[in-house]
Amino acid sequence: MADFDYDLFVIGGGSGGVRSARLAASLGKRVAIAEEYRFGGTCVIRGCVPKKLFVYASQYHEHFEDAVGYGWSVGETSFNWKKLIAAKDKEIGRLEGLYRKGLENAGAEILETRAELTGPNSVRLVKSGRVVTAERIVIAVGGAPNPHASLPGHELCISSNEAFHLEELPRSIVIAGGGYIAVEFANIFHGLGVDTTLIYRGMEILSRFDQDMRRGLHEAMEAKGIRILCHDVIEKVEKTPADGLRVTTKNNDVLTADQVMLALGRDPNTSGLGLEVAGVVTNERGAIVVDEYSRTNVPGIFAFGDVTDRVQLTPVAIHEAMCFIETEYKNNPTRPDHDLIATAVFSQPEIGTIGLSEEQAAKRYPEIEVYRAQFRPMKATLSGRNEKMVMKLIVNAADRKVVGAHVLGHDAGEMAQLLGITLKAGCTKDDFDRTMAVHPTAAEELVTMYSPSYRVRNGERV
Amino acid sequence: MADFDYDLFVIGGGSGGVRSARLAASLGKRVAIAEEYRFGGTCVIRGCVPKKLFVYASQYHEHFEDAVGYGWSVGETSFNWKKLIAAKDKEIGRLEGLYRKGLENAGAEILETRAELTGPNSVRLVKSGRVVTAERIVIAVGGAPNPHASLPGHELCISSNEAFHLEELPRSIVIAGGGYIAVEFANIFHGLGVDTTLIYRGMEILSRFDQDMRRGLHEAMEAKGIRILCHDVIEKVEKTPADGLRVTTKNNDVLTADQVMLALGRDPNTSGLGLEVAGVVTNERGAIVVDEYSRTNVPGIFAFGDVTDRVQLTPVAIHEAMCFIETEYKNNPTRPDHDLIATAVFSQPEIGTIGLSEEQAAKRYPEIEVYRAQFRPMKATLSGRNEKMVMKLIVNAADRKVVGAHVLGHDAGEMAQLLGITLKAGCTKDDFDRTMAVHPTAAEELVTMYSPSYRVRNGERV
Repeated sequence: MADFDYDLFVIGGGSGGVRSARLAASLGKRVAIAEEYRFGGTCVIRGCVPKKLFVYASQYHEHFEDAVGYGWSVGETSFNWKKLIAAKDKEIGRLEGLYRKGLENAGAEILETRAELTGPNSVRLVKSGRVVTAERIVIAVGGAPNPHASLPGHELCISSNEAFHLEELPRSIVIAGGGYIAVEFANIFHGLGVDTTLIYRGMEILSRFDQDMRRGLHEAMEAKGIRILCHDVIEKVEKTPADGLRVTTKNNDVLTADQVMLALGRDPNTSGLGLEVAGVVTNERGAIVVDEYSRTNVPGIFAFGDVTDRVQLTPVAIHEAMCFIETEYKNNPTRPDHDLIATAVFSQPEIGTIGLSEEQAAKRYPEIEVYRAQFRPMKATLSGRNEKMVMKLIVNAADRKVVGAHVLGHDAGEMAQLLGITLKAGCTKDDFDRTMAVHPTAAEELVTMYSPSYRVRNGERV
Repeated sequence: MADFDYDLFVIGGGSGGVRSARLAASLGKRVAIAEEYRFGGTCVIRGCVPKKLFVYASQYHEHFEDAVGYGWSVGETSFNWKKLIAAKDKEIGRLEGLYRKGLENAGAEILETRAELTGPNSVRLVKSGRVVTAERIVIAVGGAPNPHASLPGHELCISSNEAFHLEELPRSIVIAGGGYIAVEFANIFHGLGVDTTLIYRGMEILSRFDQDMRRGLHEAMEAKGIRILCHDVIEKVEKTPADGLRVTTKNNDVLTADQVMLALGRDPNTSGLGLEVAGVVTNERGAIVVDEYSRTNVPGIFAFGDVTDRVQLTPVAIHEAMCFIETEYKNNPTRPDHDLIATAVFSQPEIGTIGLSEEQAAKRYPEIEVYRAQFRPMKATLSGRNEKMVMKLIVNAADRKVVGAHVLGHDAGEMAQLLGITLKAGCTKDDFDRTMAVHPTAAEELVTMYSPSYRVRNGERV
């Protein structure tokens, strides 16, 4: 141990890196953590947190509209993008400070520099050129939006990174992609008054989600006025004389917009990290290959979070970091558990989901019961807003276990969190049926769907 | 059977009565249901539903305020009480129509009259004077606000019934009571701009709730500007020359207000119902005494819902009605299950709760673990609103079962519904710990409180 400068060197100040550095330092380990940009990682700096703040901002115009049905008159409203950005930046700065403080209080050394591997136990601090050694190295450098470099005009486009710092709110935007980032930003921009078009090459947005969620959200977004073009891709992006952008699609649509945003997946941040020098193996996508304990092929080098491209979610990176601490420093070998992860899409309406989609469950089990409810939320009765909530439970008929739960509508993310516990605990439909309703809530629908809407037997709906 | 006019006669068109009548009729039984006022009962006509619509209405002024922190400018806003009442009445009318339609479609006969028992198998229809017979009779006539007739000036006061139909929004109101109805209306009126005072004789509002919920809500309401006077009661109410009301309290406070609302409990609607004639036993509160199958002491006469004063909640009445149908008409004896009922208080902030309070659990178990988190919800970071969410899990240390879960804050009711499933299914704290967080949500706090905040051993906090 004494041969190394540090017990643990963490590269990357995001969710996974910070958690591992902080916990190891609080156990008395000599820890350094290097970050070249800002502490907090994608989640805090240009992901979950600012995204959700934008979501809140983009919902107010509906509040203003809905208020009228409840007896309110609302004077003229306007939105100031620069004010939102400034408020958001202030809050992100505050959160970054908390991350730093947590590290400092635990006794971890903060290094504001890019760090690159120079061997299995050594790292070069790029800013100073100094090389330091560590018994264990954690790589938690996350990912970044795929720049889609093969697209002519890609350099004219923004990604979610830039969307958080635009000088001006565009009057119009074309967003390429059908994943949750594309969908969330389409709703954000639309909610802030931007003419919004989503282009996605697939059949339907949000592949791998339950079909009812996908269709339901698609319809709700179109009903709001978001243009969605499926089965199409951007072929080129060009500047127009008026300083706008012209988008030509494969289907020969031509669209003009102030901004074009590419949300076509994210890539692991592994380039130039010295992985080859240290001998760390990556896969064809550039992600670091790890075993079930987040160990790379090089003894003493670990990786977690988005850079491993397992499940790209903040809580998963944190969980992997905590498992690493248990395994390496607490003599309690703990494998990260990637089974049954609840997630939310902060679209408008929201999606909350846990477990299998109907389609997946129908493939896995000989017979499933599908419980499905679609209804107008109570708030919409007076607001007059034309919206539906959709709730679905997927039950394995053989043992009555709920194997999937899906919600489209307000608070779906909060609901998914708690539905997550029930699936993780292996609750059955009978447990749901036994539960008294809380009235009036939306979630009560989830415990009062007593009869299956239909069954799927050997893949056939019956 | 043929000796009776009906197989089932239901007195009372509320949640429990309508459900039993509809289900029995759909099984082919000859069913009549009598209601003297409007179908839908307390819940639909002057309880849960219009209350929640009022809650929505009363939240907009905070949306307007919060919007500013998110970059919005909102012009002058105003609220029109008459518009809200009209919109609410229209919606309630629509819902009542759905209740009637459900009964009609099932083939139940709707009788718009008060009905009173004239014997164990006979009922007099008050409007026509006709007496009809039935093999089984269900009494589901609900309850009504206690008028507090011993209070001098009680006739000048309103109850929740009148609150739904006030001609004008009062400029000021004094509400007597500390239960959920008093608390919800205090928040509603305050949210609509009414100067609001709550007077409650107890130490703290919402007795029997977890102490953290009670204190947390109290503080939040006071911070908003609601005056709360605990340890005090109204001694008399008088008219002032200016057509207002003067309230004198036991502590010699004198308050003036446009309206005084009494929310001092609800009484079963049993007076004049002919219970004595039929020989149906009631308790000292006037509630119909029933056994575990909702049977009164008179064979063939059943009662459920608020008139039995077991648990005064809509879903419970419906559940009791469904158990009655199973037991009496489907040869499947089913006792209503009153254990572990999740409930919500639609105060602002909301409370959602299931299972034991810390205080109750500490008495029941030798050792409990208390997990407690208090935090500012993300939305409040930019709005600048000074509010805290409080979340608590109470765990029986002996078997790790979660025996109580309590949430104060936005969406607490939705969360309580789903937490209800986990407690009903007997989930342990380990099931919670095993569940991956959904980020960023508020509910993720419920699955990331890994270490107890404190323990209570033999009633002592340690």
